[in-house]
Amino acid sequence: MIIVMKHQATLEEISAVVSQVEARGYRAHLSHGTERTIIGVVGDDRPLENHQFELLPGVEKVVRILQPFKLASRDFHPENTIVRVRGVTIGGKQIVVIAGPCAVESRSQLLETAYAVKEAGASILRGGAYKPRTSPYSFQGLGEDGLELLAEAREATGLPIITEVMSPEAVPIVGKYTDIFQIGARNMQNYALLHAVGKTRTPVFLKRGMMNTVQEWLMSAEYVLSGGNQQVIVCERGIRTFETATRNTLDINAIPLLKQWTHLPVFADPSHGTGKWELVAPTAKACLAAGADGLIIEVHPHPEQALSDGVQSLKPERFKELMEDLRRLVPALDRTI
Amino acid sequence: MIIVMKHQATLEEISAVVSQVEARGYRAHLSHGTERTIIGVVGDDRPLENHQFELLPGVEKVVRILQPFKLASRDFHPENTIVRVRGVTIGGKQIVVIAGPCAVESRSQLLETAYAVKEAGASILRGGAYKPRTSPYSFQGLGEDGLELLAEAREATGLPIITEVMSPEAVPIVGKYTDIFQIGARNMQNYALLHAVGKTRTPVFLKRGMMNTVQEWLMSAEYVLSGGNQQVIVCERGIRTFETATRNTLDINAIPLLKQWTHLPVFADPSHGTGKWELVAPTAKACLAAGADGLIIEVHPHPEQALSDGVQSLKPERFKELMEDLRRLVPALDRTI
Amino acid sequence: MIIVMKHQATLEEISAVVSQVEARGYRAHLSHGTERTIIGVVGDDRPLENHQFELLPGVEKVVRILQPFKLASRDFHPENTIVRVRGVTIGGKQIVVIAGPCAVESRSQLLETAYAVKEAGASILRGGAYKPRTSPYSFQGLGEDGLELLAEAREATGLPIITEVMSPEAVPIVGKYTDIFQIGARNMQNYALLHAVGKTRTPVFLKRGMMNTVQEWLMSAEYVLSGGNQQVIVCERGIRTFETATRNTLDINAIPLLKQWTHLPVFADPSHGTGKWELVAPTAKACLAAGADGLIIEVHPHPEQALSDGVQSLKPERFKELMEDLRRLVPALDRTI
Amino acid sequence: MIIVMKHQATLEEISAVVSQVEARGYRAHLSHGTERTIIGVVGDDRPLENHQFELLPGVEKVVRILQPFKLASRDFHPENTIVRVRGVTIGGKQIVVIAGPCAVESRSQLLETAYAVKEAGASILRGGAYKPRTSPYSFQGLGEDGLELLAEAREATGLPIITEVMSPEAVPIVGKYTDIFQIGARNMQNYALLHAVGKTRTPVFLKRGMMNTVQEWLMSAEYVLSGGNQQVIVCERGIRTFETATRNTLDINAIPLLKQWTHLPVFADPSHGTGKWELVAPTAKACLAAGADGLIIEVHPHPEQALSDGVQSLKPERFKELMEDLRRLVPALDRTI
Repeated sequence: MIIVMKHQATLEEISAVVSQVEARGYRAHLSHGTERTIIGVVGDDRPLENHQFELLPGVEKVVRILQPFKLASRDFHPENTIVRVRGVTIGGKQIVVIAGPCAVESRSQLLETAYAVKEAGASILRGGAYKPRTSPYSFQGLGEDGLELLAEAREATGLPIITEVMSPEAVPIVGKYTDIFQIGARNMQNYALLHAVGKTRTPVFLKRGMMNTVQEWLMSAEYVLSGGNQQVIVCERGIRTFETATRNTLDINAIPLLKQWTHLPVFADPSHGTGKWELVAPTAKACLAAGADGLIIEVHPHPEQALSDGVQSLKPERFKELMEDLRRLVPALDRTI
Repeated sequence: MIIVMKHQATLEEISAVVSQVEARGYRAHLSHGTERTIIGVVGDDRPLENHQFELLPGVEKVVRILQPFKLASRDFHPENTIVRVRGVTIGGKQIVVIAGPCAVESRSQLLETAYAVKEAGASILRGGAYKPRTSPYSFQGLGEDGLELLAEAREATGLPIITEVMSPEAVPIVGKYTDIFQIGARNMQNYALLHAVGKTRTPVFLKRGMMNTVQEWLMSAEYVLSGGNQQVIVCERGIRTFETATRNTLDINAIPLLKQWTHLPVFADPSHGTGKWELVAPTAKACLAAGADGLIIEVHPHPEQALSDGVQSLKPERFKELMEDLRRLVPALDRTI
Repeated sequence: MIIVMKHQATLEEISAVVSQVEARGYRAHLSHGTERTIIGVVGDDRPLENHQFELLPGVEKVVRILQPFKLASRDFHPENTIVRVRGVTIGGKQIVVIAGPCAVESRSQLLETAYAVKEAGASILRGGAYKPRTSPYSFQGLGEDGLELLAEAREATGLPIITEVMSPEAVPIVGKYTDIFQIGARNMQNYALLHAVGKTRTPVFLKRGMMNTVQEWLMSAEYVLSGGNQQVIVCERGIRTFETATRNTLDINAIPLLKQWTHLPVFADPSHGTGKWELVAPTAKACLAAGADGLIIEVHPHPEQALSDGVQSLKPERFKELMEDLRRLVPALDRTI
Repeated sequence: MIIVMKHQATLEEISAVVSQVEARGYRAHLSHGTERTIIGVVGDDRPLENHQFELLPGVEKVVRILQPFKLASRDFHPENTIVRVRGVTIGGKQIVVIAGPCAVESRSQLLETAYAVKEAGASILRGGAYKPRTSPYSFQGLGEDGLELLAEAREATGLPIITEVMSPEAVPIVGKYTDIFQIGARNMQNYALLHAVGKTRTPVFLKRGMMNTVQEWLMSAEYVLSGGNQQVIVCERGIRTFETATRNTLDINAIPLLKQWTHLPVFADPSHGTGKWELVAPTAKACLAAGADGLIIEVHPHPEQALSDGVQSLKPERFKELMEDLRRLVPALDRTI
């Protein structure tokens, strides 16, 4: 942390800041520039709040030097984290594809999709039993019935399952069924929920909030990690920008950036990232080319009848074509699938 | 809902869309333009999903005509909603100012602030007992002890209290103490929480998500209203943009826009909206000039020692000056305070 | 400028950075933290480029401490700049209102508007002769005929005039007529144009680019100031955000922020800032409440027939009402009008 | 164009709108819904302005159905446009890579880079002679001396050249040397400049404005096309968002979207799109995987000494590695390089 003093800060003001730094158990290091004096705070200053200094007389601003996350950082954990789920290895050389419907709608819809995505080469089955919907008038999911159908589909196909959990009190019931907890974009900063899944030992698939920076996102991962759950996967799913021609703007830059900053496996969701099924295949390839460890893709046997997100779902035959394209692509990226 | 057909859509494709519209119980109204045929869906189409038509062959896109919210709309409820809390009338001619610390930190801090803001003219006391913090290493609030201190401050000063509730399971305990539930920006789309407060009859103070449109925000209000709780206040608190010189960008346009679109009382939060105490007074005045029904402002007796948000908190003496300025201002706006 | 070294930077890498700093004529000031070593660059480092250090081995990042603008800054010019145009004083205690049509369309349209805004209390007449239009198929302005009509309207009413200049080669011809050059939002970083108006002594009204930070905007002002033209007025006109319910998001925070950072007069444009005439009056009042020195407002006698921006133009009678409201408002802000 | 009437619009208001539509030579098509009446405008309504109807009594809003661009659209020009420059074919099956320094700094710097990028496999040489810089205190380019060096490098290596033109008056001089005009992001809506290059027959490389939608961008292409110049290439170079960890957010979605909407060749600029050299290679691959027809990449022999953009420039050896990676990648995408 660097404390920048104002142009005309007095010696008394500078001394007072130094005293405050030292009173909190840190060392202060002064540097007198030609226009500003700056004071370096020496020590792990993550627990300090900016305003504790920014409001002292003569202070212009406080600049943070350290990344605020620690457990999620490669500085402190250089090796890639590998997450293992019922025989599927996530975060290694092999690309992992998660596929399935946005929402579990019926036994036949789910099973038909599960068999299709398995045959095409997906490793994990997705499906929402509890759905966060913008409108209270939209389909809200089948609830525990949906969870049971997911478990049945797992038994039938052998695919591990992932499903969203939306509130702390639902963690036990969802955890009874699912292999991976999905935390949705709207809940990325639902700290009560992060706290609850952090106390479990079930892997957590943490989607980026559509309004959140990569740094804030890794701070949310830090919540889970600091709870003791080391099995966290992060998933880029598009951010909100001024561009409205697509549902979101898939932040492709975030993928290699995350591979630099964190040891956690990095996934991408081209279905939500674009919101248009025609754009899913090209952006899915782009995400792998950029270094993603895996993909999550919405597949529905009859998208025009889907109860949610139909417009961004692939039909099984198109998903199969995409998987064939990916099999051609990944050797050029030194990955397997 | 308007269904726009592609440039070269065939007659068969057009008929198929019409059949689908009619199969769902709506009337279809065709209009043949020079470049496109469009199909109007006649009826309350809010329950329909765009993709149910967008994925049919020959369809280019679906355009929504109706606002998706109904209970929150002036179309269906032209008169202003008035919320009454222990003798304070919100949404009428009189401006209501809510003030207090970001977080309840101690008995003395809260009582000192409560007396100060009351004397300066605030009508309601704010204070967080449960705090949503970006970092798991930051102060997370006093919890129920904080709620008890708030109740004590209410008893001492006579000011009604408002405090944030962060998860559905906390609704009963927070509801036992508070006069108004605050839903924070990060929880604006926490639907489980909206559902829970919608089942109570305690007023709900719904802050805008930092990356949510006004339309989505009113859809979140719709969640509460459709649960049966008519006592909803909406509060603009700044949105996230590319500008980083301020913590958020206070969306001043949203204030008069909301007064057109909805009958609910509209508040503004210049503390979060700017993130800098020096900008709070000018923007507070601006919000009232734009038509806000009230303000929520962070006040702390010793901001440099605050456990959160110190940099945007006013000291009691500055808050008093601001209230004096507002008393001079509001007659020119045909309001009282 | 602070150079932050990587977690495991070696002593050799640190020395090499220090040598580079000194080789460029600056002093290097080292500070060894617990996780990072940082190197302060002592001297006016505005001419340095970040990458000159960021690319050296062992460097993690470079953090700028100084604002990049100098001539535009209050640090170096604490007193408010006052711009005087044919008897109108801009930047003083008196609020200045500029009004008129988006585009000059005809003699009668311009004169009718000019007389109306003068009578209502405007001090300066606006009108575009050259129009930047998103579509090549839209009305592009009357060109020099428009400039002549503006000059005629000035003669008739006594109001000074402001009009947009869009390219360096048009500076002489526009300068022959106008009292103030307007630089539009799309040209805020048209450096050839900034350079050209910087060489004149005609006041420059510099609108904020819809994609630009306040810092970049003051850097554009710096271009004009460094050319020798000290008569610069900055005008907030809304930025582009994810919100599409309004044409732009008027950045109300920028107004008091600019009053802190710069000595230049600060205006606001609620017509472009909102894009909807119903929102112009409330946001115009808000801008003055936030500290703006003046307003620029689009007025058209028959907005529904306007060749551009009709939807955000006020009719003369509504402009008159607004001016009456402003006359009631400004005493409470210790201003005159 | 669809005109949506208000909830309680009267029959007189509806008739008046219909009369206005017909008075402008269009047919009006009425559709009476349960909550709103809507009026379809039949005919090519691109020349109409929204406000001509939006301001009529009883009108709620106007919704555009047609894309505003025509010459740039696949609707009217289904086949891909191929641009040919001194034997290089742009927009076909073969990927084209443009490379070179951000700015031409010296003869040796340019020639060294030109030979290196040619050997690595680039087809076109880039280099800026006139530089748009945020600060008036930064290096502004060598001007015509830079153009001469570019011509010399072309002669020496046989590579065609591309360089930026920043103002209409510079079009003749830049056009004397360059094979392709580059229009930079800050000038995407500099209509005087678009007009000037539209009158030439030199290919135009049109970068996206950092805060412009894909639709606005194609409207800028339309300016050039409507001037008679059919040789336009569009280049995604990142947009501005709230994320500040990277210089821009490369909008990967825009690439396949453009391939749907327009027949023009689509390029991508991972150097500006990320602003960090470590992220250039992964995102370059991602852009090709998403369907880009080519790339433009900054290469500098000594980035730490570059006069601009050093931090995002590749060294020649890294560029060579990238080209090797691309050669492995493109067969899996059914392209050549």
